[in-house]
Amino acid sequence: MAGNIMVAQSGGPTAVINSSLAGVISGAAKYMNGASVFGSLNGIEGVIKGKIVSLSEQVEGEEEMDLLSKTPAMALGSCRFKMPRPENGKEVYEAIEKTLEKYDIDTFVYIGGNDSMDTVLTLSKYFKDKGIDIKVVGVPKTIDNDLCGTDHTPGFGSAAKYIATTLSEIASDCAIYDLDAVTIVEIMGRNAGFLTMAAGIPTFLGEYAPQLIYLPERPISLEKIVSDIKEKMRTSRAVIVAVSEGVKTEDGEYLAAAAPDAFGHKQLSGAGKVLEQVIKKEIGCKVRSIELNTPQRGAAHIMSETDRKEAFLLGEKAIEAAASQKSGVVSVILRDGEQEYNVSYSVESADVVANAEKKVPQDYINKEGNFITEKAYRYMLPLIMGEVDLKYENGIPVKFKIDKTKLV
Amino acid sequence: MAGNIMVAQSGGPTAVINSSLAGVISGAAKYMNGASVFGSLNGIEGVIKGKIVSLSEQVEGEEEMDLLSKTPAMALGSCRFKMPRPENGKEVYEAIEKTLEKYDIDTFVYIGGNDSMDTVLTLSKYFKDKGIDIKVVGVPKTIDNDLCGTDHTPGFGSAAKYIATTLSEIASDCAIYDLDAVTIVEIMGRNAGFLTMAAGIPTFLGEYAPQLIYLPERPISLEKIVSDIKEKMRTSRAVIVAVSEGVKTEDGEYLAAAAPDAFGHKQLSGAGKVLEQVIKKEIGCKVRSIELNTPQRGAAHIMSETDRKEAFLLGEKAIEAAASQKSGVVSVILRDGEQEYNVSYSVESADVVANAEKKVPQDYINKEGNFITEKAYRYMLPLIMGEVDLKYENGIPVKFKIDKTKLV
Repeated sequence: MAGNIMVAQSGGPTAVINSSLAGVISGAAKYMNGASVFGSLNGIEGVIKGKIVSLSEQVEGEEEMDLLSKTPAMALGSCRFKMPRPENGKEVYEAIEKTLEKYDIDTFVYIGGNDSMDTVLTLSKYFKDKGIDIKVVGVPKTIDNDLCGTDHTPGFGSAAKYIATTLSEIASDCAIYDLDAVTIVEIMGRNAGFLTMAAGIPTFLGEYAPQLIYLPERPISLEKIVSDIKEKMRTSRAVIVAVSEGVKTEDGEYLAAAAPDAFGHKQLSGAGKVLEQVIKKEIGCKVRSIELNTPQRGAAHIMSETDRKEAFLLGEKAIEAAASQKSGVVSVILRDGEQEYNVSYSVESADVVANAEKKVPQDYINKEGNFITEKAYRYMLPLIMGEVDLKYENGIPVKFKIDKTKLV
Repeated sequence: MAGNIMVAQSGGPTAVINSSLAGVISGAAKYMNGASVFGSLNGIEGVIKGKIVSLSEQVEGEEEMDLLSKTPAMALGSCRFKMPRPENGKEVYEAIEKTLEKYDIDTFVYIGGNDSMDTVLTLSKYFKDKGIDIKVVGVPKTIDNDLCGTDHTPGFGSAAKYIATTLSEIASDCAIYDLDAVTIVEIMGRNAGFLTMAAGIPTFLGEYAPQLIYLPERPISLEKIVSDIKEKMRTSRAVIVAVSEGVKTEDGEYLAAAAPDAFGHKQLSGAGKVLEQVIKKEIGCKVRSIELNTPQRGAAHIMSETDRKEAFLLGEKAIEAAASQKSGVVSVILRDGEQEYNVSYSVESADVVANAEKKVPQDYINKEGNFITEKAYRYMLPLIMGEVDLKYENGIPVKFKIDKTKLV
């Protein structure tokens, strides 16, 4: 008889990581008839410490599954635990083994980003080497969309929808005054500019929108940005600039660090705040900087239905893979064809996903390095499509909560 | 024969100020059969400069009206023009007279806040004194909810819904880590704390939510805030603090200005950023500050249906008042009874609305000055109720645009 499933979540939150969790629960019913699903609190740490809840008991029925799939952040909590190599962390591995044995676990599923996929890789090798029959599979998530081996990553589409919508609203706000003004919007993405790309979507739709976009993948100088803004101000009184927090100069320095000391407060300020100061000094018009901050990664109230659906299916897919005896793999999305949006779901070795960072392709950025190309727009558009039918109570969306005190 | 209607918008944007504009257009059909509706670009400045569009021509049919009522910011643009007194601004008044005469205007409607209601007052007196039969009426709007003579102000409900939803999402985000962390969220409101109050809504609903709330209406010291946070950290690892940008110390100084110089950068930083620095130093845990910034005033994608409906009805009501020969009045909302939400619409003298600022009542704030009371919650809840059926295209909500180049 097959054993049970243990699932954990890790890394930063997204709007749809709980949809993948719901997918895992659904996959258990679909592909592993009879398996109970247990949840580990705070990622792999819960397995190590034995903090386990029963998802089979706590998420019963379609309504609860549906609500879970529409709840942002992580129902099971997260961790930032870096797994030691087996030779340096004997106790850690023994603790994991002990917990998985206790709950008769056949499949361990880790939903997370780069680091979590490295845990999938390490753990699966460890079990294989020791001849223990526990499959370890991963479900990718990250708003940054920087995982390799998959066309895109669950969490990105919803964050992109939020950013596109919010930038369009910010730009509508900026358009009302008849005066020269620059608005800088700083968007998450330390190394990859995918999220900042989403700021360009309303531009392609003819809406009020940013005229300039800067990504970490194309080094730029403060001088060039100032001159770009001056150029745009010739034809538009309200200039909106979307800038990735990770934008760098040609020396590889973060933009924030490149500002002259007088604008500095480097320890406090991100790219947006520094640009605000520089533009105030160099152009002298009204300048405002807006940092989208964490709301961009958890805005379930404007989740992409495409994203939610795909996150769910990747959860199911990981279970299907484990049911067919695969281990050390991650479920991924493959896109077929460039014209119509057509995807299929597959698995990829965790190795491919764990140890590399995807960047925005250079042909997604224009020649000048100050906007995205239509190719980038076409890549993103299908991922933000579809609205989720949310349940509201008392004016705000209802969320699902797992009772974390009900340990089993 | 009755003349036509001229309408303008002024002040900062809200999610529903265009719903009031749609209400004015609807009121023209309802109460002033045959009147054409003209729009002045950029508030009263458009009247002075003769920059006028035809709303009767540009907003035809129910679908366009519906779309307009769901479009954030201001379709006609805004201004920050302070009307001179008649004795000091002869040319201004003559220019206004000339434009209104040219379009055969019988009723001028100004949708805006304090300053705009002062314009309503001044202009109505001017016309009355000169024996000119033009009615001047106002429609209130402001996210700050600080206008007198009305139970609440259109724009507030939608901003409050956005803030309640976003705070609940931020708090869900904060809840995932098993470590001590403080998150500060700075919310708009220089003098009135109504918007910051909305951060407390999810708390009353049992959701992840802020544990501490500080409003401008109750002076507080940095020391007290630090000790409040330390107290909350005894029972909760993730403490979320909502703070109004206008929070002041007992000396009447803004909190930001009250911080020791070492934390300073006063010229750059708001209350949230300063608190972040102080808490890092005094408590030493992970601290993040989030400034909700302009997205909170234009987030039409999570508009309150109650707010949108009321904004529309106040637009109609202003026209109804003008049709019955009233001038120098503003349409207002009266709330009847405390148990069930029951409102009626009336008009109030512009004098009452123009020259005073409403504050959060002291019994909406708890004794300690660090949270809101249930009374505050009951006041706000009905205003965020109801979701708007938005039209999406290409993944983001569709907006209505007035062609500002099509002057008449």
